Amino acid sequence: MSRQPQPKTEKRYPPRATPLILVNTGTAKGKSSSSFGVLLRAWGQGYRCGVYQFLKSGKWPLGERKAAELLNDAEQGGTIDWFSCGDGWTWTSRDITETEDLAREGWEEVKRRIADESYEFLLLDEFTYPLHYGWVDMDEVVDVFTHRPGFQHIFITGRYAPDRLIELADLVTEMHPIKHPLERGIKAQPGIEW
Amino acid sequence: MSRQPQPKTEKRYPPRATPLILVNTGTAKGKSSSSFGVLLRAWGQGYRCGVYQFLKSGKWPLGERKAAELLNDAEQGGTIDWFSCGDGWTWTSRDITETEDLAREGWEEVKRRIADESYEFLLLDEFTYPLHYGWVDMDEVVDVFTHRPGFQHIFITGRYAPDRLIELADLVTEMHPIKHPLERGIKAQPGIEW
Repeated sequence: MSRQPQPKTEKRYPPRATPLILVNTGTAKGKSSSSFGVLLRAWGQGYRCGVYQFLKSGKWPLGERKAAELLNDAEQGGTIDWFSCGDGWTWTSRDITETEDLAREGWEEVKRRIADESYEFLLLDEFTYPLHYGWVDMDEVVDVFTHRPGFQHIFITGRYAPDRLIELADLVTEMHPIKHPLERGIKAQPGIEW
Repeated sequence: MSRQPQPKTEKRYPPRATPLILVNTGTAKGKSSSSFGVLLRAWGQGYRCGVYQFLKSGKWPLGERKAAELLNDAEQGGTIDWFSCGDGWTWTSRDITETEDLAREGWEEVKRRIADESYEFLLLDEFTYPLHYGWVDMDEVVDVFTHRPGFQHIFITGRYAPDRLIELADLVTEMHPIKHPLERGIKAQPGIEW
């Protein structure tokens, strides 16, 4: 399979497949990791996938990213392009004001990709925060998502998903914490949290 | 990196890392896909990973499995061995009685792997069902998990996680459905559900 993006006129999606807005929210673990699992399914289906990580966390999920690079380079499945703070964009600062600017810049890029139909599967990791804090305009997001052309799944993760996003979404799952190792004094660790 | 299992005396895990029992339960989507995301982190950490799928579903997550095979064959990261109904074991039947037998057979195999410390990360997908229906003995499972030797994370997914499993676990997340495309008459589709 070519590693070049396919022309948008070539149908790469199954008949009767419906492009969805998917949201993972809630305060428990599993929001991002679950979306990465679905990303693998989209890749397995041959989709062109784009991952945009909207916040600079202390710990990036290096395993997922490393896996995504390997899968992107593989001779089977689809493609995975990965953009995140500090490398894909110019996101380098922990300063809150700059974080706002960088989130807005990221959203501008995502808008372009949606207009160009660059991907069949877009993962906007932690995109709820720019929405929650009002860094990007909710009206515009709703408009862009609602009128996106062609066949584009969009998966948004993060806490505090705004009501309007939930209203717009086709699939919303809340990750609810029942028990966390921190309660037993066990700290976050590689191989699990990142 | 060698594709042969490492001798168990060789430490492959980070200092101060703590082996955990993790559970994803609840009625919403995201239980298995989230565990696959964490599997990628464990793989990225260089862990030997074993996946055991305990129930034969109508649709397997082919993307995940294909990805796991590619990652297992890669020259970086850890390893992923994948066993599921109908191939890894001799699981071939949809008959409920045989399903019970096959689940028990799967558990016997997992017990051997735990005793041998074959993996640093064990994913027991949908293992809650054999527990919920009493096909495998909960006392024995608690005993085996509690006294597992060495360094072994165990991640269990599925609905109806029994109270005793939740009590034993270090991390429990409940996937709670807020909204599902079926409500709008949109059927399950490749690239999302499998």
